[in-house]
Amino acid sequence: MQVDLLCIGNELLSGLVENTNAGYISRRLWSKGIPVREQRVVSDSVSAIVKALKESLSCSEAVICTGGLGPTDDDLTREAVSEALQRPLLLDQGWLRRLERFFEGRGNPMPAANRKQALVVEGSRLLPNPLGTAPAAIVPAGKRLVILLPGPPREMRPLFEKEILPFLAARGFRASWRTKVVRTVGCGESLLEEKIKKVGLPEGVLFSPLAGGGEVLLQLRTAAADPAAAALLDEAARRLREHLGEYIYGENEETLAKTVAGLFTKRGLTLALAESCSGGLLADALTDIPGSSLFFKGSLVTYGNEAKEKLLGVPAELLKSEGAVSKAVALAMARGARRALSASVGAAITGIAGPESDSSGSPVGLVYTALCGPAGESCRRTLLPGSRRAVKERSVQTTLAALWRMMRSAV
Amino acid sequence: MQVDLLCIGNELLSGLVENTNAGYISRRLWSKGIPVREQRVVSDSVSAIVKALKESLSCSEAVICTGGLGPTDDDLTREAVSEALQRPLLLDQGWLRRLERFFEGRGNPMPAANRKQALVVEGSRLLPNPLGTAPAAIVPAGKRLVILLPGPPREMRPLFEKEILPFLAARGFRASWRTKVVRTVGCGESLLEEKIKKVGLPEGVLFSPLAGGGEVLLQLRTAAADPAAAALLDEAARRLREHLGEYIYGENEETLAKTVAGLFTKRGLTLALAESCSGGLLADALTDIPGSSLFFKGSLVTYGNEAKEKLLGVPAELLKSEGAVSKAVALAMARGARRALSASVGAAITGIAGPESDSSGSPVGLVYTALCGPAGESCRRTLLPGSRRAVKERSVQTTLAALWRMMRSAV
Repeated sequence: MQVDLLCIGNELLSGLVENTNAGYISRRLWSKGIPVREQRVVSDSVSAIVKALKESLSCSEAVICTGGLGPTDDDLTREAVSEALQRPLLLDQGWLRRLERFFEGRGNPMPAANRKQALVVEGSRLLPNPLGTAPAAIVPAGKRLVILLPGPPREMRPLFEKEILPFLAARGFRASWRTKVVRTVGCGESLLEEKIKKVGLPEGVLFSPLAGGGEVLLQLRTAAADPAAAALLDEAARRLREHLGEYIYGENEETLAKTVAGLFTKRGLTLALAESCSGGLLADALTDIPGSSLFFKGSLVTYGNEAKEKLLGVPAELLKSEGAVSKAVALAMARGARRALSASVGAAITGIAGPESDSSGSPVGLVYTALCGPAGESCRRTLLPGSRRAVKERSVQTTLAALWRMMRSAV
Repeated sequence: MQVDLLCIGNELLSGLVENTNAGYISRRLWSKGIPVREQRVVSDSVSAIVKALKESLSCSEAVICTGGLGPTDDDLTREAVSEALQRPLLLDQGWLRRLERFFEGRGNPMPAANRKQALVVEGSRLLPNPLGTAPAAIVPAGKRLVILLPGPPREMRPLFEKEILPFLAARGFRASWRTKVVRTVGCGESLLEEKIKKVGLPEGVLFSPLAGGGEVLLQLRTAAADPAAAALLDEAARRLREHLGEYIYGENEETLAKTVAGLFTKRGLTLALAESCSGGLLADALTDIPGSSLFFKGSLVTYGNEAKEKLLGVPAELLKSEGAVSKAVALAMARGARRALSASVGAAITGIAGPESDSSGSPVGLVYTALCGPAGESCRRTLLPGSRRAVKERSVQTTLAALWRMMRSAV
């Protein structure tokens, strides 16, 4: 049994609003072993929605729609479902009263436009939506299902978690597979694939590699019907760790930043950063992790030479003789951050993010990342060309990988 | 003439990778007045890709595909296009040599799997891809077009900008509309809509408001065929500025961060930050802007109290008596950053990002943002509940709005 997603809205097709709903719903369904056959985004047009709905209902057991449930003229999902299923729209008195109370609670009379939100497709089961006025609903269509959710993620997500996931489970959407993601860094996609083929995985375990952001994720998968599915996945992960352990930093939702954070916290060590070309992005990544204050002391985002001298104690002569983008300065920055924030480990990033080079004439994408800690120092020179943002992201990734390598061996 | 987007990859359907390509391409096409009819995401399956391709080619003049051009077994876009168009795959000797050189340049022999990347659909025009090995291509399909782009955004985006946009323009994809986005902050969506209706826009100019991230964007639109289209949009924007100027910070791609950066640069002033709960995100946003080194001195990401004392000179007694999340500490942080980095203006953010409150028992989402500059000081208390990431983003947005207000009046 599989699901289609249908996201409705001109603002998605114009790219003015980032469509985070498709990714969110897909990720949650996948984690439950429920396959998403297709994601689709169509305009605020009855005919476009009807066409997509009919196609999806002919392929998948359920279609989850988001958007188009608001009060304005371009909110047409209700009308489209009514037409696709050939079922009338009825005024739901209960929902109308709920709407009126919703506005009363905010001290305003209900605008006339909102009355439309009490129109529901015959046979719908309305879902409580404490955060808004959109009539989220489950609409049976023969043996299949149309599920209507509001577009704003803050309304959609709680409804999906509280209402839709349990409902799908009760309706027999069972896991089609079991899955495990093994996360690697430091080995290219095709080389890694070659190595895995040599190692060999247990029979019944499929894998697919996924490269991006300087990492390769390995998706392992078994049929859920296999009684040994979980054990097979564990065995596959064990084999990979045994033969390719030097590249494997985590599983499933453990990002490289989370893994690094976990290692610091577990060992009771602290980290201080000095960031030049990454401009605070590494600090941002680490502070996204709840509890990061346990190990993260802070970051000195020193964009100019003056700040590097004043806050990190990088000698002016060194900046002059070696240039701000150099091994010597990267190491001096790491030492300076460690000292200034009294941390166990200091890490530094200095490079040329572009779009133009600096006065030294070094190429855009040249980045030095340095670490210093109780067990010594290291510095790496990398050349990561790309947009300004790409250089920032890759320099952060490179530093996290270096921190991971340092932390998993004795510091 | 309209375009369909087809994004290919199991990693998108499983939600493991955020699909940023659909939004990016849509946004860029929309800004050129080229409508996107539909976005679609299908799995790494030849039959699914073929079906979607055929449907799209029957509706739109061009289909832009992303993903599935890599070297691994699940990269099947080439094969699917070959089948959909009934045209053979041929080995391109030039691309093969290019691949071999690509790997030589990195000091590795080419893995056998990559040879597959030199297979191209007969009649394709290959596009230079300096950042990767994927054979991006334009494949004419009768009077229609199939455009193949790599999945990784850092490869896809430059190709789209340098090759695809100029090519579409040359092939007669002309603007169906002209558009201007007027960007506002500080006034809610429905109130703003009321005010605009009172002001009145020139005949032939449509507008739609779009709220998100603490801002409201106003999309203004005229038919491209109207010879006075550009002048009408300018007149509409002029009227809005005249009556609602206090909320309008920019147009089109001018984000709030860019506007603030522009004001600092123009006035020859400099900025220093002290970030606690935002964890470097404001520094990250500002350093994404090329040339930010002209005004941005740096940020002191001081996550703990110790760092606030040592680096920013926030008195220990103040931290104790008021708590780290307080007006007094926010102001002391702003002053400290300004002093430590010898900047014209200091800005500070301190708050509770969650997911749990701190020992003070203040609610998650409580944030103080402070500014200090030549013209004096200010501090704002806001309560912005939401996820950890949402609190970070909203606190950055609040600070940028405050900086904008300060900078557009005399500092």
